[in-house]
Amino acid sequence: MSNSDDKNYVASAPVAPPAMDVEGQTPTPETASGFGVSAITRRWKREDFLKRGSLALRGVALLFSLIAFITMASNKHGDWKDFDKYEEFRYVLAIAVLSTLYTGGQALRHVHEISTSKQLLQPRTSALLDFFGDQIVAYLLISAASAAVPMTNRMREGADNIFTDSCAASISMEFLAFTALALSALISGYKLTTQSQI
Amino acid sequence: MSNSDDKNYVASAPVAPPAMDVEGQTPTPETASGFGVSAITRRWKREDFLKRGSLALRGVALLFSLIAFITMASNKHGDWKDFDKYEEFRYVLAIAVLSTLYTGGQALRHVHEISTSKQLLQPRTSALLDFFGDQIVAYLLISAASAAVPMTNRMREGADNIFTDSCAASISMEFLAFTALALSALISGYKLTTQSQI
Repeated sequence: MSNSDDKNYVASAPVAPPAMDVEGQTPTPETASGFGVSAITRRWKREDFLKRGSLALRGVALLFSLIAFITMASNKHGDWKDFDKYEEFRYVLAIAVLSTLYTGGQALRHVHEISTSKQLLQPRTSALLDFFGDQIVAYLLISAASAAVPMTNRMREGADNIFTDSCAASISMEFLAFTALALSALISGYKLTTQSQI
Repeated sequence: MSNSDDKNYVASAPVAPPAMDVEGQTPTPETASGFGVSAITRRWKREDFLKRGSLALRGVALLFSLIAFITMASNKHGDWKDFDKYEEFRYVLAIAVLSTLYTGGQALRHVHEISTSKQLLQPRTSALLDFFGDQIVAYLLISAASAAVPMTNRMREGADNIFTDSCAASISMEFLAFTALALSALISGYKLTTQSQI
């Protein structure tokens, strides 16, 4: 008799204590263990996908910023065809350098973290740095690219030569880098808010 | 003997089944009920604060966009001092109009929703619209403001008159509207991700 009681006890152990069910929000353990595990694996998969996605976007942004930087820095052809005679082209160069350094540093850090599975920074600091860094550099890139467009348009109305073409190429690369970083900022923002929920 | 067994069973019932405790993330029921209520009231307070904050930021952005729009649209003083002879100033005007319409519409919708406590759109659609709208209009505002800065600088080197001053004022107002909308986009992004977690 006491044996069968023990059996009952073991069988009924995983039933939910009713105190836990607050306005039907908290799942009962039966659903919780099923829901919890699938939710956790789903979350891991999503986080892994997002991590790779944001690394890829930063890589793309690094590539485009580097091209923008090289194109603009080598854009000196004498007389009026020197990029450093125009403040908008100097701004484009400065932001391209900044964006190259930022995306390069971030990509290196994330590659290092993925390959060694070791965090260099606290997860919270890292998420904050990612989001605000991406967002600020994205704003700077679109600002620099937009600033240089009107001057380039005006020059190309008069003359279409290697100087104006290089300017246009550099500006386009900054727009592409901006697109990649804006998407990366979306992902970082998502990571930041989901993390603050834990 | 069987009676004391029952007692033991009752006493041990509210203890959490160990299967639920996944890496110490899931709270035990005792902490869950207390934590749940305070977390929910805290969340309500925070959401109320964020709703008012984002409405205030949109109001500020509306004000600044409207001033930018009026300043630029009335900036015609004959000869070379007409804003519509320069593509960057036309761009500033176009984006100021767009931003005025967008922030005005959003502010009206949110005021209507707060005063009648009735949602015009699905919460998810509304959060998506808020976030993407704010972010895109913020990018457009910084782009337009940046595009017009170099030309204004160049004109002010030569002559400092009512035309260049109005241009500078309009550009500054767009920068301020950008700041407000960028902050509003942060709040909307936060709302969007916390909502998708429910």
